[in-house]
Amino acid sequence: MERENRIEILDTTLRDGAQGEGINFSLRDKLAVAEALDELGVSWIEAGNPGSNPKDMEFFMHAGELKLKNAKLCAFGPTRKKDAAPGSDPMIRSLLDSGAEGIVIFGKSWDLQVTEVLRVSPEENIAMIAETIAFLKAEGREVFYDAEHFFDGWKANPAYALAAVAAAVDAGAGRVILCDTNGGNFPDLVAEGVKAAIRTAEERKKSSSPLIGIHVHNDSGLAVACSIAAVQAGCRHVQGTLAGFGERCGNACLASLIPSLELKMNIRCLPQGNLPMISALTRRVAEIANVSLSGDMPYVGGHAFSHKAGMHTDGVLKNSRTFEHVDPAMVGNDRHLLMSEMGGRSAVAERARKVDPDITREHPLVSVLAGKLKSLEAEGWAFEGADASFELLVRRELGRYKPLFFIEAYRVVSEHPTGSAIACSHAWVKVLVEDQHEIAAAEGDGPVNALDGALRRALTRFYPELKKVRLDDYKVRVIDGKDATAARVRVLIESTDGSLRWGTVGVSADIIDASRAALTDSIEYKLIGDIERRFKTYL
Amino acid sequence: MERENRIEILDTTLRDGAQGEGINFSLRDKLAVAEALDELGVSWIEAGNPGSNPKDMEFFMHAGELKLKNAKLCAFGPTRKKDAAPGSDPMIRSLLDSGAEGIVIFGKSWDLQVTEVLRVSPEENIAMIAETIAFLKAEGREVFYDAEHFFDGWKANPAYALAAVAAAVDAGAGRVILCDTNGGNFPDLVAEGVKAAIRTAEERKKSSSPLIGIHVHNDSGLAVACSIAAVQAGCRHVQGTLAGFGERCGNACLASLIPSLELKMNIRCLPQGNLPMISALTRRVAEIANVSLSGDMPYVGGHAFSHKAGMHTDGVLKNSRTFEHVDPAMVGNDRHLLMSEMGGRSAVAERARKVDPDITREHPLVSVLAGKLKSLEAEGWAFEGADASFELLVRRELGRYKPLFFIEAYRVVSEHPTGSAIACSHAWVKVLVEDQHEIAAAEGDGPVNALDGALRRALTRFYPELKKVRLDDYKVRVIDGKDATAARVRVLIESTDGSLRWGTVGVSADIIDASRAALTDSIEYKLIGDIERRFKTYL
Repeated sequence: MERENRIEILDTTLRDGAQGEGINFSLRDKLAVAEALDELGVSWIEAGNPGSNPKDMEFFMHAGELKLKNAKLCAFGPTRKKDAAPGSDPMIRSLLDSGAEGIVIFGKSWDLQVTEVLRVSPEENIAMIAETIAFLKAEGREVFYDAEHFFDGWKANPAYALAAVAAAVDAGAGRVILCDTNGGNFPDLVAEGVKAAIRTAEERKKSSSPLIGIHVHNDSGLAVACSIAAVQAGCRHVQGTLAGFGERCGNACLASLIPSLELKMNIRCLPQGNLPMISALTRRVAEIANVSLSGDMPYVGGHAFSHKAGMHTDGVLKNSRTFEHVDPAMVGNDRHLLMSEMGGRSAVAERARKVDPDITREHPLVSVLAGKLKSLEAEGWAFEGADASFELLVRRELGRYKPLFFIEAYRVVSEHPTGSAIACSHAWVKVLVEDQHEIAAAEGDGPVNALDGALRRALTRFYPELKKVRLDDYKVRVIDGKDATAARVRVLIESTDGSLRWGTVGVSADIIDASRAALTDSIEYKLIGDIERRFKTYL
Repeated sequence: MERENRIEILDTTLRDGAQGEGINFSLRDKLAVAEALDELGVSWIEAGNPGSNPKDMEFFMHAGELKLKNAKLCAFGPTRKKDAAPGSDPMIRSLLDSGAEGIVIFGKSWDLQVTEVLRVSPEENIAMIAETIAFLKAEGREVFYDAEHFFDGWKANPAYALAAVAAAVDAGAGRVILCDTNGGNFPDLVAEGVKAAIRTAEERKKSSSPLIGIHVHNDSGLAVACSIAAVQAGCRHVQGTLAGFGERCGNACLASLIPSLELKMNIRCLPQGNLPMISALTRRVAEIANVSLSGDMPYVGGHAFSHKAGMHTDGVLKNSRTFEHVDPAMVGNDRHLLMSEMGGRSAVAERARKVDPDITREHPLVSVLAGKLKSLEAEGWAFEGADASFELLVRRELGRYKPLFFIEAYRVVSEHPTGSAIACSHAWVKVLVEDQHEIAAAEGDGPVNALDGALRRALTRFYPELKKVRLDDYKVRVIDGKDATAARVRVLIESTDGSLRWGTVGVSADIIDASRAALTDSIEYKLIGDIERRFKTYL
């Protein structure tokens, strides 16, 4: 039956996600997030609470600029105020004014909330739910009812929680969403609660019951598990946020949930063929929010298919099923074999093939590289986040490398001059490109930033494409603190030119020199790649 | 029954956690992680694979320096090689040589793994498991059997997976741990698999069955849920990593799991009274690994009890149960909105009493300090490893502070001169002590080391006791990587004079300036302490 193998996804990144600490969307950000979600193909985008937040109303006023292909918008708001008519409540008017096709009304299911927070009688709360839904339904909108704290309420007073659900069904809600607002419940309880609500809904509407939905927060680390349990128990509408943003510990992460539903439960959530976009689109949403996604995110994280232990890299190359639960291509992610002391020859060979496809595990270069890797790691180098530096190492060993520039000299000065209130840094760098010298200087926020600025400035005369490159992340690790300020330092840099991303590494007792090494690799990797793409060959 | 309400926790941060991307522990880091885990009170610490990694063996050689109160150590390794005797296998000898009380042997349960990766016959695989366990048992060790890929194996060929379990039980394993190595399974399947394994174990050993354990990876975002399902199905031993580190998407996060087991299932995992240490100790382990913990981690994350939406803050102030699933104090965490008014004050007062024993929680200084702390933390300062800097802050607010020296000016130069093969750094510093100036210069391994040398040299004329002080640890953390080399940097320094140890912190966009701040605090703290000890008063 069609309906059983398909569920609706509602993404609430723009509403519940925006309540997460550190998340602040501008209007432009919101439009860009909505576009990404539509491209992925969720059914509904909950885009804000126009009555309580003028910035959310602004979004709805601009929503016409969006050319949505897949998703419809909904606006979120409370039930009417106590002892008032829905039609005269300004919050409810603003929901209508938003022009959203769907309207999500949240109401209380837990008697503790009704008496202690809302401070109305249990009967008035039920009337507030029913009348608000009936009013919006009569206005011709698709009405969703979010049963806030449903599971806590159902534990405390099941009859009352189910009476609230029944009132929403009777009033004509097309979807009733059961919420674990505090995120404290276990999947088995969620499944039982869902079944009870479905029975109630079916008793009220014999012909066409509303869709029952689920909305869970992650305070116990169980949001994905509870959402899956709810779908197994009969929910056909799932709410969450693509990257897991949300109040406190976040909402159910749709980037974890959708691949499991589609690939393991055979339930369609997105338009056919869209699942492989989920990694890139989740990263895009995080990029818009200016949040670094954790590398260990299931399915879509940068480390989700990374293999480090030698036995694992060896196993995964023999048969990927041995250490991968799904094929990374199905979710648009990539396998990474980490270059480390725990990795083996298979991983080295796999990576060397990016430079020369003919290199096998038995190629003599592979032992040379594995040995070199081991001795570099003993000195504190780490190539895990530094694919580009490793590729340059392979090129040098293969003889497929010619330096594109030399740093002839540099000087970085950090000083706090007499009489000045603040410290400052400046640098000059002298480079040699073929037979031409160039010298350039820059100031910076600290010595590494100054060196970076001067180096780019000197090289841009020869390689204008470097203007597009920017450093995206900079990490410093003291390799062993024992020698304190004389300890060796490892610098990891991530660079991007807007479409590609690559990582490089440098190690030295001198943080400036370590940064110089990582910056040099970053620029060289970019230039070699550009040459290869343009001329189909480099060396 | 006692046993039913207690489970064993094995933390594998040092073994499986070290296989996570970006995790690289030095020997000193490993010892510090082991101390933190022991303080929390886990039962077992899986500390490495001594046969495959010389750095892990080094840890076991130094483990005697640890004064463990709660935890025992175990070493991890493979079954014997095919067609060989366990006693002559160098990997197995190194497990014995490690001196660890517990030995964890991993073996294959999935016929795909046996034939495709291990490339031995199914019968030989069973013999490898049985003989290795029996040999180690005869050597008097506590033997754990990790049934790798148990659940995938059980799905594919239940009889074979259970035969491997039976062989381990018969050979005398004290614990048999069922692993979802690829992290792809759902909680319901895990529960069924656990029940099948328990039935098998009970059939083999009527009198004393081994403990059945669970070990799950988080590739589907379900590691915590699967571990809980396994405990509900009868597991009494749980493996994971405190902060969730581990290969690919990580291992089951113990900081999420232990609070749920203790607070919601009433199952004791840690010594009584230890649960409130879990937030601070999880952060300490992350700090040692130089990894930023995600703020949205359940229970222990910095945002786990943050309330942003107005309705939520209002509700939580009326009754905390309305928007919090547990009391944050039970896991040693703080509610965010109240932090400056309530949560932080006790801690601030406690620390301020080190300077002035008369300061109570109600002292007006305490609110001032709590406010100051909050704004400094927003700028990226962190006083967790920097008690000495915090004490100086208290002294300044109390007016019990007079600077003992000023840095009038400094200049640090890092350069790679034309024609030279190597980079070098040198610095000069001009200080003012009372009315006398002194200038001194030094070279160093990098700019911070040079600055440190010059500053000490200039001050030693006035304070010869500084000769005894040395920096013991130096850590750099980029606070927000997004601005790349212009990001703010936090420098943490640990100093010692041979008997005392103290930590200081500095923050700046300029790593040299941040180091200068932390070095200045370190020297000042030492000098003030010496004066107070000598004259019984300072100000």
